[in-house]
Amino acid sequence: MAAPSDEEGAVGPRCHRRSTAMLDVPFLPFCAFLGTLGLLCVAMVGSWCQHWRGGFSLDGSSRTFNWHPVLMVTGLVVLYGAAALVYRIPNTWSGPKLPWKVLHGSLALGAFVLTVLGLAAVFRFHNAQGTPNMYSLHSWMGLATVLLFSCQWAAGFGAFLLPWAPAWLRALYKPIHVFFGSTILMLSVASCVSGINEKLFFSLKNGTTQYKLLPAEAVFANTLGLLILIFGVLVVAALARPSWKRPDSDSPDSRQ
Amino acid sequence: MAAPSDEEGAVGPRCHRRSTAMLDVPFLPFCAFLGTLGLLCVAMVGSWCQHWRGGFSLDGSSRTFNWHPVLMVTGLVVLYGAAALVYRIPNTWSGPKLPWKVLHGSLALGAFVLTVLGLAAVFRFHNAQGTPNMYSLHSWMGLATVLLFSCQWAAGFGAFLLPWAPAWLRALYKPIHVFFGSTILMLSVASCVSGINEKLFFSLKNGTTQYKLLPAEAVFANTLGLLILIFGVLVVAALARPSWKRPDSDSPDSRQ
Repeated sequence: MAAPSDEEGAVGPRCHRRSTAMLDVPFLPFCAFLGTLGLLCVAMVGSWCQHWRGGFSLDGSSRTFNWHPVLMVTGLVVLYGAAALVYRIPNTWSGPKLPWKVLHGSLALGAFVLTVLGLAAVFRFHNAQGTPNMYSLHSWMGLATVLLFSCQWAAGFGAFLLPWAPAWLRALYKPIHVFFGSTILMLSVASCVSGINEKLFFSLKNGTTQYKLLPAEAVFANTLGLLILIFGVLVVAALARPSWKRPDSDSPDSRQ
Repeated sequence: MAAPSDEEGAVGPRCHRRSTAMLDVPFLPFCAFLGTLGLLCVAMVGSWCQHWRGGFSLDGSSRTFNWHPVLMVTGLVVLYGAAALVYRIPNTWSGPKLPWKVLHGSLALGAFVLTVLGLAAVFRFHNAQGTPNMYSLHSWMGLATVLLFSCQWAAGFGAFLLPWAPAWLRALYKPIHVFFGSTILMLSVASCVSGINEKLFFSLKNGTTQYKLLPAEAVFANTLGLLILIFGVLVVAALARPSWKRPDSDSPDSRQ
Protein backbone atom coordinates (compact mmCIF):
# COMPACT_ATOMS: atom_id res chain seq x y z
CA MET A 1 0.00 0.00 0.00
CA ALA A 2 1.43 3.38 -0.90
CA ALA A 3 1.93 5.78 1.97
CA PRO A 4 -1.13 8.02 1.91
CA SER A 5 0.87 10.68 3.71
CA ASP A 6 2.94 11.19 0.58
CA GLU A 7 -0.10 11.68 -1.58
CA GLU A 8 -1.60 14.03 0.93
CA GLY A 9 1.55 16.08 0.76
CA ALA A 10 0.42 16.91 -2.77
CA VAL A 11 -2.74 18.57 -1.47
CA GLY A 12 -1.67 22.13 -2.08
CA PRO A 13 -3.39 25.45 -1.39
CA ARG A 14 -5.22 25.35 -4.75
CA CYS A 15 -6.72 21.97 -3.88
CA HIS A 16 -7.69 23.25 -0.42
CA ARG A 17 -9.37 26.29 -1.93
CA ARG A 18 -11.24 24.17 -4.46
CA SER A 19 -12.51 21.73 -1.82
CA THR A 20 -13.45 24.59 0.51
CA ALA A 21 -15.40 26.25 -2.27
CA MET A 22 -17.22 22.99 -3.03
CA LEU A 23 -18.26 22.66 0.63
CA ASP A 24 -19.16 26.30 1.07
CA VAL A 25 -22.71 26.85 2.26
CA PRO A 26 -24.02 30.42 2.58
CA PHE A 27 -25.05 31.21 6.16
CA LEU A 28 -28.42 32.83 5.59
CA PRO A 29 -30.07 30.04 3.53
CA PHE A 30 -28.66 27.54 6.05
CA CYS A 31 -30.15 29.66 8.82
CA ALA A 32 -33.54 29.75 7.06
CA PHE A 33 -33.44 25.95 6.81
CA LEU A 34 -32.51 25.70 10.49
CA GLY A 35 -35.33 28.08 11.44
CA THR A 36 -37.83 25.98 9.49
CA LEU A 37 -36.52 22.82 11.16
CA GLY A 38 -36.77 24.44 14.59
CA LEU A 39 -40.34 25.58 13.96
CA LEU A 40 -41.20 22.10 12.69
CA CYS A 41 -39.90 20.63 15.97
CA VAL A 42 -42.02 23.07 17.99
CA ALA A 43 -45.08 22.35 15.85
CA MET A 44 -44.57 18.60 16.14
CA VAL A 45 -44.10 18.53 19.92
CA GLY A 46 -47.22 20.73 20.26
CA SER A 47 -49.21 18.48 17.91
CA TRP A 48 -48.07 15.35 19.72
CA CYS A 49 -49.29 16.69 23.09
CA GLN A 50 -52.48 18.16 21.63
CA HIS A 51 -53.50 15.30 19.37
CA TRP A 52 -52.37 12.20 21.28
CA ARG A 53 -51.79 13.30 24.90
CA GLY A 54 -54.99 15.23 25.59
CA GLY A 55 -53.92 18.86 25.20
CA PHE A 56 -52.96 21.42 27.84
CA SER A 57 -54.19 22.68 31.20
CA LEU A 58 -52.85 23.94 34.53
CA ASP A 59 -54.81 21.53 36.76
CA GLY A 60 -51.91 19.23 37.77
CA SER A 61 -53.08 16.39 35.50
CA SER A 62 -51.12 14.86 32.63
CA ARG A 63 -52.37 17.84 30.59
CA THR A 64 -50.23 20.03 32.84
CA PHE A 65 -47.28 17.73 32.21
CA ASN A 66 -47.77 18.32 28.45
CA TRP A 67 -46.39 21.84 28.84
CA HIS A 68 -43.07 20.25 29.85
CA PRO A 69 -41.98 18.81 26.47
CA VAL A 70 -43.40 21.79 24.53
CA LEU A 71 -41.61 24.39 26.68
CA MET A 72 -38.36 22.43 26.82
CA VAL A 73 -38.12 21.87 23.06
CA THR A 74 -39.16 25.50 22.37
CA GLY A 75 -36.93 27.10 25.01
CA LEU A 76 -33.96 24.87 25.73
CA VAL A 77 -33.44 23.72 22.13
CA VAL A 78 -34.96 26.01 19.47
CA LEU A 79 -34.85 29.47 21.10
CA TYR A 80 -31.52 28.60 22.75
CA GLY A 81 -30.16 27.63 19.31
CA ALA A 82 -31.39 30.95 17.86
CA ALA A 83 -29.66 32.86 20.70
CA ALA A 84 -26.42 30.94 20.15
CA LEU A 85 -26.36 31.78 16.44
CA VAL A 86 -26.82 35.57 16.78
CA TYR A 87 -23.10 36.33 16.35
CA ARG A 88 -22.95 34.27 13.16
CA ILE A 89 -25.21 36.79 11.33
CA PRO A 90 -22.81 38.78 9.12
CA ASN A 91 -24.61 42.08 10.01
CA THR A 92 -23.32 41.68 13.58
CA TRP A 93 -19.71 41.86 12.44
CA SER A 94 -19.60 45.63 11.93
CA GLY A 95 -21.00 48.62 13.80
CA PRO A 96 -21.79 48.75 17.50
CA LYS A 97 -21.83 45.39 19.25
CA LEU A 98 -24.10 46.30 22.15
CA PRO A 99 -27.48 45.86 20.34
CA TRP A 100 -26.45 42.37 19.26
CA LYS A 101 -25.29 41.53 22.77
CA VAL A 102 -28.66 42.65 24.09
CA LEU A 103 -30.42 40.52 21.45
CA HIS A 104 -28.24 37.49 22.30
CA GLY A 105 -28.86 37.94 26.03
CA SER A 106 -32.59 38.57 25.56
CA LEU A 107 -33.15 35.48 23.40
CA ALA A 108 -31.18 33.41 25.93
CA LEU A 109 -33.25 34.91 28.77
CA GLY A 110 -36.44 34.05 26.87
CA ALA A 111 -35.15 30.49 26.43
CA PHE A 112 -34.34 30.33 30.14
CA VAL A 113 -37.80 31.58 31.19
CA LEU A 114 -39.52 28.97 28.99
CA THR A 115 -37.20 26.33 30.46
CA VAL A 116 -38.05 27.26 34.04
CA LEU A 117 -41.78 27.20 33.18
CA GLY A 118 -41.19 23.76 31.62
CA LEU A 119 -39.59 22.56 34.86
CA ALA A 120 -42.45 24.07 36.88
CA ALA A 121 -44.95 22.11 34.75
CA VAL A 122 -43.35 18.74 35.47
CA PHE A 123 -42.85 19.49 39.19
CA ARG A 124 -46.49 20.58 39.52
CA PHE A 125 -47.64 17.40 37.74
CA HIS A 126 -45.45 15.15 39.92
CA ASN A 127 -46.50 16.88 43.14
CA ALA A 128 -50.20 16.67 42.21
CA GLN A 129 -49.84 12.96 41.44
CA GLY A 130 -47.65 12.13 44.47
CA THR A 131 -44.79 11.05 42.19
CA PRO A 132 -41.25 11.76 43.44
CA ASN A 133 -39.23 14.34 41.51
CA MET A 134 -35.68 13.99 40.25
CA TYR A 135 -35.08 10.25 40.22
CA SER A 136 -34.51 9.32 36.56
CA LEU A 137 -31.30 9.82 34.59
CA HIS A 138 -33.36 12.06 32.27
CA SER A 139 -34.23 14.33 35.21
CA TRP A 140 -30.65 14.41 36.56
CA MET A 141 -29.26 15.26 33.12
CA GLY A 142 -32.02 17.80 32.45
CA LEU A 143 -31.57 19.58 35.77
CA ALA A 144 -27.77 19.63 35.33
CA THR A 145 -28.36 21.22 31.90
CA VAL A 146 -30.68 23.89 33.32
CA LEU A 147 -28.28 24.65 36.20
CA LEU A 148 -25.40 25.03 33.73
CA PHE A 149 -27.62 27.27 31.58
CA SER A 150 -28.45 29.50 34.56
CA CYS A 151 -24.73 29.84 35.44
CA GLN A 152 -23.96 30.53 31.76
CA TRP A 153 -26.57 33.27 31.52
CA ALA A 154 -25.62 34.95 34.81
CA ALA A 155 -21.89 34.82 34.07
CA GLY A 156 -22.44 36.06 30.51
CA PHE A 157 -24.55 38.94 31.77
CA GLY A 158 -21.98 39.84 34.42
CA ALA A 159 -18.99 39.61 32.12
CA PHE A 160 -20.30 40.98 28.82
CA LEU A 161 -23.28 43.24 29.57
CA LEU A 162 -22.48 44.87 32.91
CA PRO A 163 -20.04 47.74 32.39
CA TRP A 164 -17.55 47.04 35.17
CA ALA A 165 -16.09 43.66 34.09
CA PRO A 166 -12.39 44.21 33.28
CA ALA A 167 -11.15 43.43 29.78
CA TRP A 168 -8.84 40.63 30.98
CA LEU A 169 -11.78 38.87 32.66
CA ARG A 170 -13.86 39.10 29.45
CA ALA A 171 -10.97 37.72 27.40
CA LEU A 172 -10.47 34.91 29.91
CA TYR A 173 -14.15 34.01 30.16
CA LYS A 174 -15.13 34.29 26.48
CA PRO A 175 -13.80 30.89 25.31
CA ILE A 176 -15.37 29.26 28.39
CA HIS A 177 -18.72 30.90 27.53
CA VAL A 178 -18.42 29.74 23.91
CA PHE A 179 -17.50 26.18 24.96
CA PHE A 180 -20.40 25.87 27.40
CA GLY A 181 -22.72 27.43 24.81
CA SER A 182 -22.33 24.38 22.56
CA THR A 183 -22.09 21.93 25.47
CA ILE A 184 -25.39 23.05 27.02
CA LEU A 185 -27.13 22.64 23.66
CA MET A 186 -25.77 19.09 23.29
CA LEU A 187 -26.96 18.27 26.82
CA SER A 188 -30.38 19.83 26.07
CA VAL A 189 -30.80 17.65 23.01
CA ALA A 190 -29.72 14.51 24.90
CA SER A 191 -32.20 15.42 27.67
CA CYS A 192 -35.02 15.92 25.15
CA VAL A 193 -34.54 12.62 23.34
CA SER A 194 -34.24 10.65 26.59
CA GLY A 195 -37.39 12.42 27.83
CA ILE A 196 -39.39 11.64 24.67
CA ASN A 197 -38.23 8.01 24.87
CA GLU A 198 -39.25 7.81 28.55
CA LYS A 199 -42.63 9.48 27.96
CA LEU A 200 -43.49 7.03 25.16
CA PHE A 201 -42.71 4.05 27.43
CA PHE A 202 -44.93 5.59 30.14
CA SER A 203 -47.82 6.43 27.81
CA LEU A 204 -47.95 3.62 25.24
CA LYS A 205 -48.78 0.52 27.25
CA ASN A 206 -52.19 -0.80 26.35
CA GLY A 207 -53.66 -2.97 23.61
CA THR A 208 -52.87 -1.83 20.10
CA THR A 209 -51.15 1.35 21.32
CA GLN A 210 -48.18 -0.40 22.91
CA TYR A 211 -44.90 1.33 22.07
CA LYS A 212 -43.39 -1.93 20.80
CA LEU A 213 -46.17 -2.21 18.18
CA LEU A 214 -45.12 1.19 16.78
CA PRO A 215 -48.51 2.92 16.61
CA ALA A 216 -48.73 6.22 14.68
CA GLU A 217 -47.97 8.24 17.83
CA ALA A 218 -44.70 6.34 18.35
CA VAL A 219 -43.57 6.91 14.76
CA PHE A 220 -44.49 10.59 15.05
CA ALA A 221 -42.67 11.17 18.36
CA ASN A 222 -39.62 9.08 17.35
CA THR A 223 -39.39 11.23 14.20
CA LEU A 224 -39.64 14.34 16.37
CA GLY A 225 -36.73 13.02 18.47
CA LEU A 226 -34.58 12.50 15.37
CA LEU A 227 -35.43 15.99 14.06
CA ILE A 228 -34.41 17.53 17.41
CA LEU A 229 -31.11 15.62 17.16
CA ILE A 230 -30.52 16.91 13.62
CA PHE A 231 -31.36 20.47 14.71
CA GLY A 232 -28.89 20.29 17.60
CA VAL A 233 -26.10 18.81 15.48
CA LEU A 234 -26.57 21.48 12.78
CA VAL A 235 -26.50 24.35 15.30
CA VAL A 236 -23.33 22.99 16.97
CA ALA A 237 -21.76 22.53 13.51
CA ALA A 238 -22.70 26.11 12.50
CA LEU A 239 -21.17 27.44 15.73
CA ALA A 240 -17.94 25.52 15.08
CA ARG A 241 -17.54 26.55 11.41
CA PRO A 242 -14.57 28.97 11.25
CA SER A 243 -15.76 30.90 8.19
CA TRP A 244 -19.03 31.81 9.91
CA LYS A 245 -17.36 33.28 13.01
CA ARG A 246 -16.90 37.02 13.58
CA PRO A 247 -13.58 37.89 11.94
CA ASP A 248 -12.49 39.74 15.11
CA SER A 249 -13.14 36.68 17.20
CA ASP A 250 -10.35 34.79 15.47
CA SER A 251 -7.86 35.20 18.28
CA PRO A 252 -6.39 32.00 19.73
CA ASP A 253 -8.47 31.98 22.90
CA SER A 254 -11.79 32.96 21.39
CA ARG A 255 -11.60 30.20 18.77
CA GLN A 256 -11.86 27.52 21.50
CA MET B 1 -24.71 51.18 30.87
CA ALA B 2 -21.39 51.68 29.11
CA ALA B 3 -21.06 50.05 25.72
CA PRO B 4 -19.19 46.78 26.43
CA SER B 5 -17.98 46.82 22.83
CA ASP B 6 -15.77 49.79 23.65
CA GLU B 7 -14.21 48.06 26.58
CA GLU B 8 -13.67 44.92 24.58
CA GLY B 9 -11.82 47.00 22.06
CA ALA B 10 -9.20 47.34 24.78
CA VAL B 11 -8.61 43.57 24.83
CA GLY B 12 -5.30 43.61 23.05
CA PRO B 13 -2.99 40.78 21.99
CA ARG B 14 -1.21 40.79 25.36
CA CYS B 15 -4.50 40.25 27.16
CA HIS B 16 -5.44 37.47 24.73
CA ARG B 17 -2.10 35.77 25.29
CA ARG B 18 -2.45 36.03 29.06
CA SER B 19 -5.97 34.60 29.08
CA THR B 20 -4.92 31.83 26.68
CA ALA B 21 -2.01 30.92 28.95
CA MET B 22 -4.33 30.82 31.97
CA LEU B 23 -6.66 28.40 30.19
CA ASP B 24 -3.90 26.27 28.74
CA VAL B 25 -4.18 22.61 29.67
CA PRO B 26 -1.42 20.22 28.56
CA PHE B 27 -2.79 17.49 26.29
CA LEU B 28 -1.18 14.42 27.84
CA PRO B 29 -2.36 14.89 31.47
CA PHE B 30 -5.82 15.73 30.06
CA CYS B 31 -5.64 12.53 28.03
CA ALA B 32 -4.61 10.49 31.10
CA PHE B 33 -7.63 11.92 32.94
CA LEU B 34 -9.88 11.11 30.00
CA GLY B 35 -8.48 7.54 29.83
CA THR B 36 -9.18 7.06 33.54
CA LEU B 37 -12.71 8.41 33.10
CA GLY B 38 -13.30 6.10 30.12
CA LEU B 39 -12.05 3.06 32.04
CA LEU B 40 -14.24 4.06 34.98
CA CYS B 41 -17.28 4.12 32.66
CA VAL B 42 -16.42 0.65 31.34
CA ALA B 43 -15.85 -0.69 34.87
CA MET B 44 -19.12 0.84 36.08
CA VAL B 45 -21.29 -0.48 33.24
CA GLY B 46 -19.72 -3.94 33.75
CA SER B 47 -20.29 -3.78 37.52
CA TRP B 48 -23.89 -2.64 37.04
CA CYS B 49 -24.70 -5.61 34.79
CA GLN B 50 -22.72 -8.08 36.92
CA HIS B 51 -23.84 -6.97 40.37
CA TRP B 52 -27.45 -5.89 39.82
CA ARG B 53 -28.54 -7.39 36.48
CA GLY B 54 -27.40 -11.01 36.92
CA GLY B 55 -24.15 -11.11 34.94
CA PHE B 56 -23.49 -12.35 31.41
CA SER B 57 -24.36 -15.33 29.20
CA LEU B 58 -25.15 -16.16 25.57
CA ASP B 59 -28.44 -18.02 26.22
CA GLY B 60 -30.85 -15.32 24.94
CA SER B 61 -31.94 -14.33 28.47
CA SER B 62 -31.56 -10.89 30.06
CA ARG B 63 -27.98 -11.96 30.82
CA THR B 64 -27.39 -11.92 27.04
CA PHE B 65 -28.90 -8.44 26.89
CA ASN B 66 -26.32 -7.33 29.50
CA TRP B 67 -23.60 -7.52 26.86
CA HIS B 68 -25.42 -4.70 25.02
CA PRO B 69 -24.69 -1.79 27.41
CA VAL B 70 -21.18 -3.06 28.17
CA LEU B 71 -20.19 -3.40 24.50
CA MET B 72 -21.83 -0.12 23.46
CA VAL B 73 -20.18 1.96 26.19
CA THR B 74 -16.83 0.24 25.60
CA GLY B 75 -16.94 0.35 21.79
CA LEU B 76 -19.13 3.21 20.64
CA VAL B 77 -18.05 5.67 23.36
CA VAL B 78 -14.70 4.87 25.01
CA LEU B 79 -12.75 3.09 22.24
CA TYR B 80 -14.33 5.39 19.64
CA GLY B 81 -13.18 8.39 21.72
CA ALA B 82 -9.64 6.96 21.87
CA ALA B 83 -9.63 6.48 18.08
CA ALA B 84 -10.86 10.04 17.51
CA LEU B 85 -8.09 11.52 19.66
CA VAL B 86 -5.14 9.75 17.95
CA TYR B 87 -4.21 12.78 15.82
CA ARG B 88 -4.15 15.04 18.89
CA ILE B 89 -1.07 13.19 20.27
CA PRO B 90 1.85 15.54 19.54
CA ASN B 91 4.06 12.56 18.41
CA THR B 92 1.75 12.12 15.41
CA TRP B 93 2.60 15.60 14.10
CA SER B 94 6.01 14.69 12.68
CA GLY B 95 7.42 11.70 10.81
CA PRO B 96 5.44 9.30 8.64
CA LYS B 97 1.68 9.58 8.99
CA LEU B 98 0.78 6.07 7.83
CA PRO B 99 1.38 4.25 11.16
CA TRP B 100 -0.89 6.72 12.94
CA LYS B 101 -3.53 6.35 10.23
CA VAL B 102 -3.39 2.58 10.72
CA LEU B 103 -3.71 3.03 14.50
CA HIS B 104 -6.67 5.42 14.06
CA GLY B 105 -8.38 3.06 11.61
CA SER B 106 -7.67 -0.02 13.77
CA LEU B 107 -9.03 1.52 16.97
CA ALA B 108 -12.12 2.66 15.06
CA LEU B 109 -12.49 -0.83 13.57
CA GLY B 110 -12.19 -2.34 17.07
CA ALA B 111 -14.87 0.08 18.27
CA PHE B 112 -17.07 -0.90 15.33
CA VAL B 113 -16.68 -4.64 15.96
CA LEU B 114 -17.65 -4.21 19.64
CA THR B 115 -20.63 -2.09 18.53
CA VAL B 116 -21.87 -4.76 16.11
CA LEU B 117 -21.50 -7.42 18.81
CA GLY B 118 -23.45 -5.10 21.13
CA LEU B 119 -26.24 -4.87 18.55
CA ALA B 120 -26.17 -8.65 18.06
CA ALA B 121 -26.65 -9.11 21.83
CA VAL B 122 -29.82 -7.01 21.96
CA PHE B 123 -31.27 -8.53 18.76
CA ARG B 124 -30.62 -12.06 20.10
CA PHE B 125 -32.29 -11.17 23.42
CA HIS B 126 -35.32 -9.61 21.71
CA ASN B 127 -35.71 -12.51 19.28
CA ALA B 128 -35.42 -15.10 22.06
CA GLN B 129 -38.08 -13.24 24.11
CA GLY B 130 -40.41 -12.55 21.16
CA THR B 131 -39.97 -8.77 21.63
CA PRO B 132 -40.03 -6.64 18.46
CA ASN B 133 -36.79 -4.93 17.47
CA MET B 134 -36.31 -1.28 16.54
CA TYR B 135 -39.37 0.45 17.92
CA SER B 136 -38.07 2.88 20.57
CA LEU B 137 -36.50 6.28 19.90
CA HIS B 138 -33.39 4.90 21.63
CA SER B 139 -33.17 2.11 19.06
CA TRP B 140 -33.79 4.44 16.08
CA MET B 141 -31.14 6.86 17.28
CA GLY B 142 -28.71 4.06 18.14
CA LEU B 143 -29.09 2.35 14.77
CA ALA B 144 -28.73 5.67 12.93
CA THR B 145 -25.52 6.22 14.91
CA VAL B 146 -24.13 2.79 14.01
CA LEU B 147 -25.07 3.22 10.33
CA LEU B 148 -23.33 6.61 10.25
CA PHE B 149 -20.32 5.02 11.96
CA SER B 150 -20.15 2.24 9.34
CA CYS B 151 -20.28 4.81 6.50
CA GLN B 152 -17.66 6.90 8.29
CA TRP B 153 -15.29 3.96 8.68
CA ALA B 154 -15.73 2.71 5.11
CA ALA B 155 -15.37 6.17 3.57
CA GLY B 156 -12.36 6.95 5.78
CA PHE B 157 -10.70 3.67 4.78
CA GLY B 158 -11.41 4.30 1.10
CA ALA B 159 -10.26 7.91 1.12
CA PHE B 160 -7.30 7.88 3.51
CA LEU B 161 -5.88 4.34 3.65
CA LEU B 162 -6.39 2.96 0.14
CA PRO B 163 -3.66 4.27 -2.16
CA TRP B 164 -5.78 5.31 -5.16
CA ALA B 165 -7.92 8.11 -3.70
CA PRO B 166 -6.96 11.37 -5.49
CA ALA B 167 -5.64 14.24 -3.39
CA TRP B 168 -8.59 16.51 -4.24
CA LEU B 169 -11.03 13.89 -2.97
CA ARG B 170 -9.10 13.56 0.30
CA ALA B 171 -9.05 17.34 0.73
CA LEU B 172 -12.78 17.50 0.01
CA TYR B 173 -13.71 14.63 2.30
CA LYS B 174 -11.44 15.40 5.28
CA PRO B 175 -13.58 18.16 6.88
CA ILE B 176 -16.68 15.97 6.38
CA HIS B 177 -14.90 13.06 8.12
CA VAL B 178 -13.82 15.34 10.97
CA PHE B 179 -17.34 16.77 11.36
CA PHE B 180 -19.01 13.36 11.44
CA GLY B 181 -16.30 12.11 13.82
CA SER B 182 -17.57 14.45 16.55
CA THR B 183 -21.22 14.12 15.53
CA ILE B 184 -21.21 10.32 15.79
CA LEU B 185 -19.71 10.54 19.29
CA MET B 186 -22.42 12.99 20.38
CA LEU B 187 -25.09 10.66 18.99
CA SER B 188 -23.44 7.67 20.71
CA VAL B 189 -23.53 9.42 24.06
CA ALA B 190 -27.17 10.48 23.57
CA SER B 191 -28.01 6.86 22.63
CA CYS B 192 -26.24 5.51 25.72
CA VAL B 193 -27.94 7.81 28.21
CA SER B 194 -31.38 7.21 26.69
CA GLY B 195 -30.66 3.46 26.80
CA ILE B 196 -29.59 3.50 30.46
CA ASN B 197 -32.68 5.56 31.33
CA GLU B 198 -34.92 3.10 29.44
CA LYS B 199 -33.28 0.02 30.99
CA LEU B 200 -33.74 1.39 34.52
CA PHE B 201 -37.47 1.96 33.88
CA PHE B 202 -37.74 -1.61 32.55
CA SER B 203 -35.81 -3.21 35.38
CA LEU B 204 -36.68 -1.24 38.52
CA LYS B 205 -40.38 -1.86 38.98
CA ASN B 206 -41.05 -3.82 42.14
CA GLY B 207 -41.34 -3.09 45.86
CA THR B 208 -38.39 -1.22 47.30
CA THR B 209 -36.42 -1.37 44.06
CA GLN B 210 -38.71 0.94 42.09
CA TYR B 211 -36.77 3.49 40.05
CA LYS B 212 -38.73 6.37 41.57
CA LEU B 213 -37.53 5.35 45.05
CA LEU B 214 -33.91 5.77 43.88
CA PRO B 215 -32.45 2.47 45.10
CA ALA B 216 -28.65 2.08 45.07
CA GLU B 217 -28.72 0.62 41.53
CA ALA B 218 -30.53 3.72 40.20
CA VAL B 219 -28.03 6.10 41.81
CA PHE B 220 -25.15 4.01 40.45
CA ALA B 221 -26.50 3.81 36.87
CA ASN B 222 -27.60 7.48 36.82
CA THR B 223 -24.07 8.41 37.89
CA LEU B 224 -22.71 6.20 35.11
CA GLY B 225 -24.91 8.09 32.63
CA LEU B 226 -23.60 11.45 33.80
CA LEU B 227 -19.97 10.21 33.59
CA ILE B 228 -20.56 9.03 30.00
CA LEU B 229 -21.94 12.49 29.19
CA ILE B 230 -18.89 14.19 30.72
CA PHE B 231 -16.55 11.82 28.83
CA GLY B 232 -18.28 12.61 25.51
CA VAL B 233 -18.28 16.38 26.09
CA LEU B 234 -14.57 16.35 27.01
CA VAL B 235 -13.60 14.32 23.92
CA VAL B 236 -15.60 16.63 21.61
CA ALA B 237 -14.02 19.65 23.34
CA ALA B 238 -10.52 18.18 22.93
CA LEU B 239 -11.20 17.55 19.22
CA ALA B 240 -12.38 21.15 18.74
CA ARG B 241 -9.46 22.81 20.59
CA PRO B 242 -7.34 24.58 17.94
CA SER B 243 -4.03 24.36 19.83
CA TRP B 244 -4.29 20.56 20.05
CA LYS B 245 -4.79 20.07 16.29
CA ARG B 246 -2.00 18.97 13.95
CA PRO B 247 -0.33 22.19 12.82
CA ASP B 248 -0.54 21.05 9.19
CA SER B 249 -4.28 20.56 9.48
CA ASP B 250 -4.83 24.26 9.98
CA SER B 251 -5.99 24.92 6.46
CA PRO B 252 -9.44 26.48 6.09
CA ASP B 253 -11.22 23.30 5.03
CA SER B 254 -9.63 20.93 7.49
CA ARG B 255 -10.47 23.14 10.46
CA GLN B 256 -14.20 22.54 9.97
